[in-house]
Amino acid sequence: MNATKSFVKIYALGGLGEIGKNMYGIEYKNEIVVVDSGLKFPEDHLPGVDLVIPDITYLLQNKKKVRGIFLTHGHEDHIGGLPYVLRELQVPVYGAPLTIALVKSKLQEHGLQNVVKLNEVNEHSRIRMKNLTVSFFRTNHSIPDSLGIAIDTPEGTIVHTGDFKFDLTPAGKPSDLTRMAQLGEKGVLALLSDSTNSEKEGMTLSEKAVGDTIDELFYRCKGRILFATFASNVYRLQQVVEASKKYNRKVAVIGRSMEKVFQIGQDLGYIQMPEGMMIELDKIDQYPPNKVTIVCTGSQGEPLAALTRIANGSHRQVQIIPGDTVIFSSSPIPGNTQNVYKTIDQLFRSGAEVIYGSLLDIHTSGHGSQEDLKLMLNLIRPKYFIPIHGEYRMLVRHSRLAEEIGVDRKNIFILDNGDSVYVSRKQAKRGEKIPSGSILVDGSGIGDVGNIVLRDRTLLSESGLIVVVVTVDMNNFQLLSGPDIISRGFVYVRESEALLREAEQITRKVTLQLLKKKEKKWADWKNQILDALTPFFYERTERSPMILPIIMEVNRERQAQKE
Amino acid sequence: MNATKSFVKIYALGGLGEIGKNMYGIEYKNEIVVVDSGLKFPEDHLPGVDLVIPDITYLLQNKKKVRGIFLTHGHEDHIGGLPYVLRELQVPVYGAPLTIALVKSKLQEHGLQNVVKLNEVNEHSRIRMKNLTVSFFRTNHSIPDSLGIAIDTPEGTIVHTGDFKFDLTPAGKPSDLTRMAQLGEKGVLALLSDSTNSEKEGMTLSEKAVGDTIDELFYRCKGRILFATFASNVYRLQQVVEASKKYNRKVAVIGRSMEKVFQIGQDLGYIQMPEGMMIELDKIDQYPPNKVTIVCTGSQGEPLAALTRIANGSHRQVQIIPGDTVIFSSSPIPGNTQNVYKTIDQLFRSGAEVIYGSLLDIHTSGHGSQEDLKLMLNLIRPKYFIPIHGEYRMLVRHSRLAEEIGVDRKNIFILDNGDSVYVSRKQAKRGEKIPSGSILVDGSGIGDVGNIVLRDRTLLSESGLIVVVVTVDMNNFQLLSGPDIISRGFVYVRESEALLREAEQITRKVTLQLLKKKEKKWADWKNQILDALTPFFYERTERSPMILPIIMEVNRERQAQKE
Repeated sequence: MNATKSFVKIYALGGLGEIGKNMYGIEYKNEIVVVDSGLKFPEDHLPGVDLVIPDITYLLQNKKKVRGIFLTHGHEDHIGGLPYVLRELQVPVYGAPLTIALVKSKLQEHGLQNVVKLNEVNEHSRIRMKNLTVSFFRTNHSIPDSLGIAIDTPEGTIVHTGDFKFDLTPAGKPSDLTRMAQLGEKGVLALLSDSTNSEKEGMTLSEKAVGDTIDELFYRCKGRILFATFASNVYRLQQVVEASKKYNRKVAVIGRSMEKVFQIGQDLGYIQMPEGMMIELDKIDQYPPNKVTIVCTGSQGEPLAALTRIANGSHRQVQIIPGDTVIFSSSPIPGNTQNVYKTIDQLFRSGAEVIYGSLLDIHTSGHGSQEDLKLMLNLIRPKYFIPIHGEYRMLVRHSRLAEEIGVDRKNIFILDNGDSVYVSRKQAKRGEKIPSGSILVDGSGIGDVGNIVLRDRTLLSESGLIVVVVTVDMNNFQLLSGPDIISRGFVYVRESEALLREAEQITRKVTLQLLKKKEKKWADWKNQILDALTPFFYERTERSPMILPIIMEVNRERQAQKE
Repeated sequence: MNATKSFVKIYALGGLGEIGKNMYGIEYKNEIVVVDSGLKFPEDHLPGVDLVIPDITYLLQNKKKVRGIFLTHGHEDHIGGLPYVLRELQVPVYGAPLTIALVKSKLQEHGLQNVVKLNEVNEHSRIRMKNLTVSFFRTNHSIPDSLGIAIDTPEGTIVHTGDFKFDLTPAGKPSDLTRMAQLGEKGVLALLSDSTNSEKEGMTLSEKAVGDTIDELFYRCKGRILFATFASNVYRLQQVVEASKKYNRKVAVIGRSMEKVFQIGQDLGYIQMPEGMMIELDKIDQYPPNKVTIVCTGSQGEPLAALTRIANGSHRQVQIIPGDTVIFSSSPIPGNTQNVYKTIDQLFRSGAEVIYGSLLDIHTSGHGSQEDLKLMLNLIRPKYFIPIHGEYRMLVRHSRLAEEIGVDRKNIFILDNGDSVYVSRKQAKRGEKIPSGSILVDGSGIGDVGNIVLRDRTLLSESGLIVVVVTVDMNNFQLLSGPDIISRGFVYVRESEALLREAEQITRKVTLQLLKKKEKKWADWKNQILDALTPFFYERTERSPMILPIIMEVNRERQAQKE
């Protein structure tokens, strides 16, 4: 398809076929609007990786076109990539006040406070470019200041919902149903909509229902309450503050991210606490247990978080005492399940009462279920539909809802990251693949951990390592030292001394043969040692450790091969 | 407490505070009845471990007392430990026909077919010992031939439920409610009851309801059906066979464990198929798609299972074709969730329709929910209650149900593996700790992988490995070769050549200093190299690879330290 004609090009650099690292592009002629810049936490097959961000090669290739990064809300999977992206792509950033406050704090931590201009926007803002105009509408999500984005183009309006549900009794401001209806009435060319909960029937539970459960629990509890939730869920925190106020409990906060959000939330007016209600952690013992609420991180069983340490008995200031009630106002993110339940079990063992799980309305998702999604589709009534923000099956389910609503099947595009679609008022077609992928961040390294490194880490974790070293004199073809065999993560050495000694004998035999043959190719040396040891270890242990032969050469220009 | 008095001693070697490796002991004077001998699949923190079995030190110490291992049913977490346990403890094994058939097949695979006598029992069997008499009652579970066990002792009857639910419209034989009521009426001293689903409200769905869903799906499907479930769920397989018969579909079976269960199930009459209904996999293309059912393993997304390979497009004989419907008649076991969803996503991408998840009644648990558990408690009406088979929180929930039923709180014992309780008709008290724990099986090694090996594997998987080798002449204190640095799983070597060269320079400097000082303690050599390299790598990469310094000595009696 010829991109110079009047088409809007739509694509994702992250967020499709996955939950996380959301980053979408809406491009018209010389202007690119980027929506979000998220990160993803690594899955099990990425050992040692700290986080994953989108590959932005395409945006760097089109640097001059990028007009800005427009943030829908302040969750990590939407803003967490910024510290990495902004190092290479200095463009203005737009977001609502809470989003910008969180970004500011994040950039400060990375020493990047002045790298770009951060622009606060709200539902009345309009950002005008040559051909594109970006405006915003309020949605409900599990963090305040969540926005949907409307991009007016010469071909029609593109709507990106951000993350949303319809909460008809929200803890904060309501969704802007009117604006969405107006957009739909005016005509929307394409809708990009959140698919996270497209597998769930019904309508997502209101945050107020959670507030009612919190109130009831606070009414019943006779001891201290430890309340764990996502730090970013400011509404939840505000509801805990309100219940604490009602039942005359002081509030103490533990966990760095929780403290930060309480600070920002109060600064921006999202968390309202009477003077003197918040107390320092070291003061909690000055109040009777039924007058204390402790709000803490660790609802995902994160090994270093406050609640996990309290459960382990390794928290410096807080120990579980009889009568404590711990409330998990959260649901475990897949991958965290084992850790969450381990923490719950430990809390029960310590004698706490623990409230968790789905029997009580103690948590709700920020993402709309099938009825929410259908309501959005009904309001926006788009010509073209692109389900976003979800694993492939979620995109499929969402696309079926769109069909039920009446979107023409051929106007629905289920994309992968890097796929592009060209839409105009007349037609829509799939376009070329653009560069996309996952950049792995490990420590301070960005993108230096690739498939070989990951494969080696996985191998090493499966059966450990055997290092075999020999020192040889290649002038006189003599074995000078070794073979020495060292193992790690393979077997407990004291119990397998004999096995390793036998492996040394095998290596010695191979080495002496090679010296006798005056073999000079190191690759052959290494292969012959591997060919002897690999079956030996497998036969004796049914394990396949990584075997690392190292040949050190003495008395001649050093030729020991490194890899 | 004096064990020579008339008490029944009850304990678990596995199954408490965990799901898996069930093994319980009921002991009276010189007789021990062991119930089950299971395995557990390793959790994330046990990299490379194949499976986990109970530590049976206590049973070996009391070898002469052990009268037999009584199996409640044929699931891995109840019989999977036998090949390991029976090598050290040759005692008779008792179980229902299907259980014994599965054990027989398992022991054959381990070359242990004649190691002990396998005894078939049923609900009419009574195994009489000097003081104890063991009898059985039918329960419902997700595998046929599941039995509860009653052990008559001079102090009263101990009832062990095995795994159970009450299925009032089962696919096989009904639970023996009458026998349970009779036991209760006669008086039960202590009940040990399955806690797996004690967190779930209501009553567990009947297997027949799943049969109805299967029938409806088969009625609707116009193409091939690929049906994935647990191989051991013989009832489910029989229901698939029945639906296939009704809609004139031939049945092909893929996966070694599935083939085995079809064979055993037909031999014992649990799976009844008309002649000619089962077809070989290579014949499926000879039938129209709507006449073919493929039953396969892989419902847990296991990397090597049939369905996973079909989803990947790497199965030799079966490829997804348009119109295929894949049914996941299972729910993901925690830990498998990511793999299961990956498989579902790949199947959707291949163009299959996929039926999964909880919206349809396409799977049911074999474990009773709260109402089932309360019914058992009502029927058995025990004096003492010990919740078994579950994580700690499940045991807590189950104990609360028992309290609701009217069991005295002080008569309820929430135990850990290795805790013992002494019960008599007069009283019950906690006793001494007995040896217990987890034995890790890795390859052919049983118990040789311990904490040090696991710690090293975890470290290696986090940031990889740096091997530093130097060869030195300790007569003349000269560096003969190296330092050579080799890394694995750390950074992609080509991109970090400079970093590794710099580390070599640092090591060279340290080595030359040590030689100059004529330092002879290898431990100091290694520490000085570590002290130089550890901060260097962390500062440059924010990673902490395992660093392995190796010093090779030439020209003197070899002293290179191995560890």
